[in-house]
Amino acid sequence: MFVLLSAKLCGKPGESTYRAASLVELLHTATLVHDDVVDDSMERRGFFSVNAIWKNKVAVLVGDYLLSRGLLLATEHKEFMHLHILSEAVKLMSEGELLQIEKTRKLNLDEDLYFDIIRKKTASLIASACAVGAYSTTNNEEITEKMRIFGEKVGIAFQIKDDLLDYGNGGIGKPTKNDIKEKKLTLPLIHAINKADKALRKKMVSIVLNNNQDIAKVDFVLKKVKELGGMEYAEQKMIEYRNESIAILHGFPDSPERRALEELVNFTTNRPY
Amino acid sequence: MFVLLSAKLCGKPGESTYRAASLVELLHTATLVHDDVVDDSMERRGFFSVNAIWKNKVAVLVGDYLLSRGLLLATEHKEFMHLHILSEAVKLMSEGELLQIEKTRKLNLDEDLYFDIIRKKTASLIASACAVGAYSTTNNEEITEKMRIFGEKVGIAFQIKDDLLDYGNGGIGKPTKNDIKEKKLTLPLIHAINKADKALRKKMVSIVLNNNQDIAKVDFVLKKVKELGGMEYAEQKMIEYRNESIAILHGFPDSPERRALEELVNFTTNRPY
Repeated sequence: MFVLLSAKLCGKPGESTYRAASLVELLHTATLVHDDVVDDSMERRGFFSVNAIWKNKVAVLVGDYLLSRGLLLATEHKEFMHLHILSEAVKLMSEGELLQIEKTRKLNLDEDLYFDIIRKKTASLIASACAVGAYSTTNNEEITEKMRIFGEKVGIAFQIKDDLLDYGNGGIGKPTKNDIKEKKLTLPLIHAINKADKALRKKMVSIVLNNNQDIAKVDFVLKKVKELGGMEYAEQKMIEYRNESIAILHGFPDSPERRALEELVNFTTNRPY
Repeated sequence: MFVLLSAKLCGKPGESTYRAASLVELLHTATLVHDDVVDDSMERRGFFSVNAIWKNKVAVLVGDYLLSRGLLLATEHKEFMHLHILSEAVKLMSEGELLQIEKTRKLNLDEDLYFDIIRKKTASLIASACAVGAYSTTNNEEITEKMRIFGEKVGIAFQIKDDLLDYGNGGIGKPTKNDIKEKKLTLPLIHAINKADKALRKKMVSIVLNNNQDIAKVDFVLKKVKELGGMEYAEQKMIEYRNESIAILHGFPDSPERRALEELVNFTTNRPY
């Protein structure tokens, strides 16, 4: 979606665009197959995950296989810029996930680090999709970089929305509160912890660290996050990133593609799930 | 080792050779880290494996990270041929492992399929190392292909030796016989099953399929493999591949590098472990 629309926004899509889209699809699928091993998830897209049916062994290998097919698609057609952009995305995604695991264990996360992690683990993929799309129709590095930044901002807004939904903000269905249970420090909680006085901060950190399966205590943390303005703060940051991304779009002349991308961005931050 | 010697055999090593060697090292390490997840191995190179210390989650991500670092090293220096050769190797390795898992489950493996699997899962990495080494000093596709075939033959001989050692042929220490226990059909067993009469074949297959943890029965299979000439046959095939690889080397003028590669090949097939 992001590849094709970015390509059309900047020029006339051709073979190189379709290869870019295939490459992003293959790499994205590869990372999802690996993610399900990483998170021990048994479900993906409404069906069993690869590891659920064929075990981790096969899932790790299938991920590697998909990745290599993507690489070959690019090297066979000498799409070197595509390759470079997507290799960078694979690096950032694994780096971001590893950073999150490391910092989460220590429950040591400030706002800058939070943005660094989501920029790497989530936003880099959307950023690379927009960049390869733009490059496929322009061969122009300046426009490519502009669209990469556009995608990065959309990706950051997307992840903040994800984190808000986990706390039940504006979503359909019950909030899962998995992030607290899994000791994930996301923006609403980080903000609230910074706003809390020393005693409350200590209590909240201790619950997330130790009592994260106790529903009453998890709900206490969530209540405090709301009282301390954590949700509004995260929402406001999300809107900032959304607006910045739309400002970049508005640097292009109006077109059906520009409007479609704008709608996609708005859906990202308004979605109820 | 194979990268540098192949590079020197064909020309004068430079920056591109060192990048090729780093790339092979990074990709090889990435596949080993993933292999340990795949096989649930707790040890690697005399120390704990990544998954043993940090769990599968981190090991899958570290493998992806190493892979992407290798790719970036290549794209940053526009080493596109290196990339192409190594992407092909990653594809073949995962394909070979998946093929082995699929066929092993059905215990359905003839000699051609055995060679197809080991060519992909094992030989493709050595083949790619020799190919990138040669390309790094020649930029010549014909010489590169010649060295790729050299490496492939060495890799096949290496894997047959590995399979022989598992049955205790010429090795130090006790044979582990893990391949029979894990229902892996390797060349000595495939040959023996083909040579056996119908009743014996049925019995051997049934043991490998069902009684593979019963030491007495495993030893019965091993004894039959030896009686039916399975070890000699595999040894003879290994020597054929070794000789073919050395014949390719002898197409190059004599040099210290040629002698070093020849020694390396001979070590591969004579090693006691």
